[in-house]
Amino acid sequence: MEMTETATRWLTDTEQCAWRTHLDVSRLLTHQLEKDLQPFGLTMNDYEILVNLSESDDRRMRMSDLAAATLQSKSRLSHQITRMENAGLVRREHCESDRRGLFAVLTDLGGETMRKVAPHHVESVRRHFMDLLSPGELSELHAALTPIAEHLRGRRGKP
Amino acid sequence: MEMTETATRWLTDTEQCAWRTHLDVSRLLTHQLEKDLQPFGLTMNDYEILVNLSESDDRRMRMSDLAAATLQSKSRLSHQITRMENAGLVRREHCESDRRGLFAVLTDLGGETMRKVAPHHVESVRRHFMDLLSPGELSELHAALTPIAEHLRGRRGKP
Repeated sequence: MEMTETATRWLTDTEQCAWRTHLDVSRLLTHQLEKDLQPFGLTMNDYEILVNLSESDDRRMRMSDLAAATLQSKSRLSHQITRMENAGLVRREHCESDRRGLFAVLTDLGGETMRKVAPHHVESVRRHFMDLLSPGELSELHAALTPIAEHLRGRRGKP
Repeated sequence: MEMTETATRWLTDTEQCAWRTHLDVSRLLTHQLEKDLQPFGLTMNDYEILVNLSESDDRRMRMSDLAAATLQSKSRLSHQITRMENAGLVRREHCESDRRGLFAVLTDLGGETMRKVAPHHVESVRRHFMDLLSPGELSELHAALTPIAEHLRGRRGKP
């Protein structure tokens, strides 16, 4: 693990400053959105699962697909689904025609919760992120981040 | 908490896609950087505290200043400093001339750890973020995120 200091490509002041801003936005925005969801008893992860299920056919997804869509490990998703099952928002179902298939299904309560919370969450995203960007800035941000997202998605599960 | 659906400014497809990309980068990048720090027994929060202390006069900071610099609550920082104290990376010190002053101080081991880990962490930041952006993209990203970071920093501790 030893590297010589001369080989290190240290960040320039400009890079350091941009990096710090990215880190701060990343952390503070998550914190703010979690705080805005708290009155509804939901976390960001909960909300994301409700969104995924509500947009799926028959409001159900295979657990492995849901893990991939929400960028979580299967074991972590399983714990999360158990918590949401206890809250009555989702239920697990085995598919009879597919013995390997374990699904997460949105309950009626989960669907109602989603409809109630979504307008508040969208306002929160607008207020703390979207409304602070011009259309041009949003487009530039998207263009800059897309290759990074692809790179990072491709690295999932690799050492 | 009721809002009528007609009042909701739902995200457009373009906004939704940019927002999703931002969320994914935010989450996956944290995950990747944490993974790259794991062989050294450090988390991102640990690393950030080592950076702050190593750049401070006498390698020490008042706990309240360190909490502000790392965007953590004082109680959370206190737990973190206890873990790092147990690992020998920092120590707490009371300032005799300032009865309210509790400081976190970098130990020699903490300083050595910082010197050893920093080149690896910088390579990780370059590889998974910086090297994927042109100078123009980095500058645009920084310009777009700066008002958001300022907005969110201003909201800390507010309801």
